[in-house]
Amino acid sequence: MFSFIRKPHPAKTAQTAKDRLQILLAHERSSGAAEADYLPMLQRDIVAAIRKHVPIGEQDVEVRIERGDQMSSLEINIELPATVPSKAG
Amino acid sequence: MFSFIRKPHPAKTAQTAKDRLQILLAHERSSGAAEADYLPMLQRDIVAAIRKHVPIGEQDVEVRIERGDQMSSLEINIELPATVPSKAG
Repeated sequence: MFSFIRKPHPAKTAQTAKDRLQILLAHERSSGAAEADYLPMLQRDIVAAIRKHVPIGEQDVEVRIERGDQMSSLEINIELPATVPSKAG
Repeated sequence: MFSFIRKPHPAKTAQTAKDRLQILLAHERSSGAAEADYLPMLQRDIVAAIRKHVPIGEQDVEVRIERGDQMSSLEINIELPATVPSKAG
């Protein structure tokens, strides 16, 4: 389902290498009928869920949404501080 | 980052074809150091976020977590009712 995946970001030099979270979400519609568009809502909720566990700034989050007839996709790329004290249990 | 993706599920026959949500999450750690394991918490929160918008049962959710030194991944496959009235705006 994720045949559209782009090449991963070019590897960064060692000292700027950070931990990264990449989330890919694909909504495949069998009926092809126009349906409720969850992606913007799911994007907001998924980033909020991550923020509960990891301190991330707006500038660390990159989002891409693509919509097609049968498939819509959401890609969220997040750069994390390298060593992160977990906030919540 | 998602080179490990398995072949998508075999296409189902038309009448059982359902809408599907597939979520792939990869946590790439540059330092390779053992760190807080967010995946189980993120899995719970992401499924909860989806449930706010789509009525899904336990049996409709399939989860796979894989852990490596530098990369951990979470795959969530959800079968959706074909036409779903959106619960929340």
